[in-house]
Amino acid sequence: MRFLLSLFVSFLVTTTASMSFADPLPSWNAGDTKSAIISFVESVTDPASDSYVTPADRIAVFDNDGTLWAEQPIYFQIAFAVDQAKKMDPADLTSDALKAAAAGDVEGMLATGKSGLLEILAASHTGMSVTDFKASVEAWLKEARHPDTGRPYDQMIYQPMLELLRYLRDEGFATYIVSGGGIDFIRVLSPDAYGIPPKQVVGSSLVSEYIVAEGAPMLMKSPELFFNDDKAGKPVAINHHIGQRPIFAGGNSDGDFEMLEWTTSGDGPAFALYVHHTDADREYAYDREGHIGVLNRGLDEGPERGWVFADMAKDWAVIFPAQAQ
Amino acid sequence: MRFLLSLFVSFLVTTTASMSFADPLPSWNAGDTKSAIISFVESVTDPASDSYVTPADRIAVFDNDGTLWAEQPIYFQIAFAVDQAKKMDPADLTSDALKAAAAGDVEGMLATGKSGLLEILAASHTGMSVTDFKASVEAWLKEARHPDTGRPYDQMIYQPMLELLRYLRDEGFATYIVSGGGIDFIRVLSPDAYGIPPKQVVGSSLVSEYIVAEGAPMLMKSPELFFNDDKAGKPVAINHHIGQRPIFAGGNSDGDFEMLEWTTSGDGPAFALYVHHTDADREYAYDREGHIGVLNRGLDEGPERGWVFADMAKDWAVIFPAQAQ
Ligand SMILES: [Ca+2]
Ligand SMILES: [Ca+2]
Repeated sequence: MRFLLSLFVSFLVTTTASMSFADPLPSWNAGDTKSAIISFVESVTDPASDSYVTPADRIAVFDNDGTLWAEQPIYFQIAFAVDQAKKMDPADLTSDALKAAAAGDVEGMLATGKSGLLEILAASHTGMSVTDFKASVEAWLKEARHPDTGRPYDQMIYQPMLELLRYLRDEGFATYIVSGGGIDFIRVLSPDAYGIPPKQVVGSSLVSEYIVAEGAPMLMKSPELFFNDDKAGKPVAINHHIGQRPIFAGGNSDGDFEMLEWTTSGDGPAFALYVHHTDADREYAYDREGHIGVLNRGLDEGPERGWVFADMAKDWAVIFPAQAQ
Repeated sequence: MRFLLSLFVSFLVTTTASMSFADPLPSWNAGDTKSAIISFVESVTDPASDSYVTPADRIAVFDNDGTLWAEQPIYFQIAFAVDQAKKMDPADLTSDALKAAAAGDVEGMLATGKSGLLEILAASHTGMSVTDFKASVEAWLKEARHPDTGRPYDQMIYQPMLELLRYLRDEGFATYIVSGGGIDFIRVLSPDAYGIPPKQVVGSSLVSEYIVAEGAPMLMKSPELFFNDDKAGKPVAINHHIGQRPIFAGGNSDGDFEMLEWTTSGDGPAFALYVHHTDADREYAYDREGHIGVLNRGLDEGPERGWVFADMAKDWAVIFPAQAQ
């Protein structure tokens, strides 16, 4: 009996080890996309390969909204702002935009235009310290639920992309988020959700001011935009925060085009991945139309540039982590 | 004979190992400063200690000019700009500031004031890509020599601080530069000089623009200031780049006061170090007066805040690396 048990354990260990060796991306279906990713990673990590890249240069950058987690029906950071508006004292709802947000009236909110949206964001994101802001995001993540799935927002992350992040790190890559979303917002969830520490999060940001009140220094968030980490801003931010050109980039919209272009314009090997939202049943299907995650130029020019597309319906065996919901 | 040799080798190995165990900071003289550093590091890395800090939170930040390398008789980045002006076509020397720089006339250059200095910096730092700028800094480091010592500028680094950086890294710290100097400039030398990769360099910066010329994307350096990483800007930049409060900070001037204040205002243990330039014989002696590395508030308030001062004349057995010059 003891002998049989030991044989069984040994079988399990061997099988698990060989499976993980055989498939670092179990939630990706076999096909060109998965093969292209694995071939690239194997070639840049093989010291005998002409494409070998030293570990210090293995930098991988990923957009967040629509690439690592979902972004429908509205960007999750907007959902956070709306939920904060709902908690505001009615006397402080001094504009149509804030009133619409507090009433959960998304159409009315969007009707107030960009200035209305900025006002809603300002109410929840400014006039407080970075520490207090992060605490409010943390509390929201615990209680808020996605309107379509009922999941916590930090479980609306893509299982195949989690596996890709882990695979890259296992192969000596440093993995970064380079997002149009707010840097302080993403940093609250990135360590637990993605295994990415705050220092490897790059994002849009507001001006912060260092003030000392009664001997206690704090960083206050002001309403002034400091940096818009989108489109041509992404390569600029990559240079600013990382100081090296990445060799792997993942995105999902035209806001990532320049990041993928910059990544694939170096002298050595590079890989560009577009997550293509094709799965209306399990997630959402959208690309060329709408106001979230629009992908036109990427679809037109990506293929001829050798960029790889992850077709969510075809390439992903699962979308969200199984343990969630 | 073989036996004696083996004994001798074994003696060497044992001695070296025990020496390095006994003294992680061999260029620091025994005394309160060295003891304070080692006590702090031992307490935050001992899992049994009340002051234990998890490796992910062991962030150490250091000013560069006057803290990790020298800054006299002029900031080395200014010396670079002057040397670049000397190489300019005389027809392009369109101002008194540029003419004075090209003539190596430091007094005349300073007489043109801040706008003159900015003009000289702009000529060598802007209107080119980040890649070309870094190549020009690299070429300069190879050929330029410090006027007082004849050493290459990247050998004007402080041996005791190199040991401190290595000691901290050996004990699980991530070491960062947080400098008022230019981020692109420092990144050229930081990996070889300090063992600090580009992504762990924070500094002042100009606006960069992403442009695509004939299919080739590049990051162009514009003359517009993006961020001044000095004084209250240092905690802001630390939050922006690192997103965590450091637990160890080193500086040498009032420009570092807020960084040290921020570092030592968290809930847990923290260490603030001021490098005090007291050694006119081996380096330079300066603090409250002059226009470089002025230290007034730090001297006045640092001691009562528990900040530690490295007295270069007393605490440092050597200043510069022995292999240099
Ligand atoms: Ca996106
Ligand atoms: Ca300094």
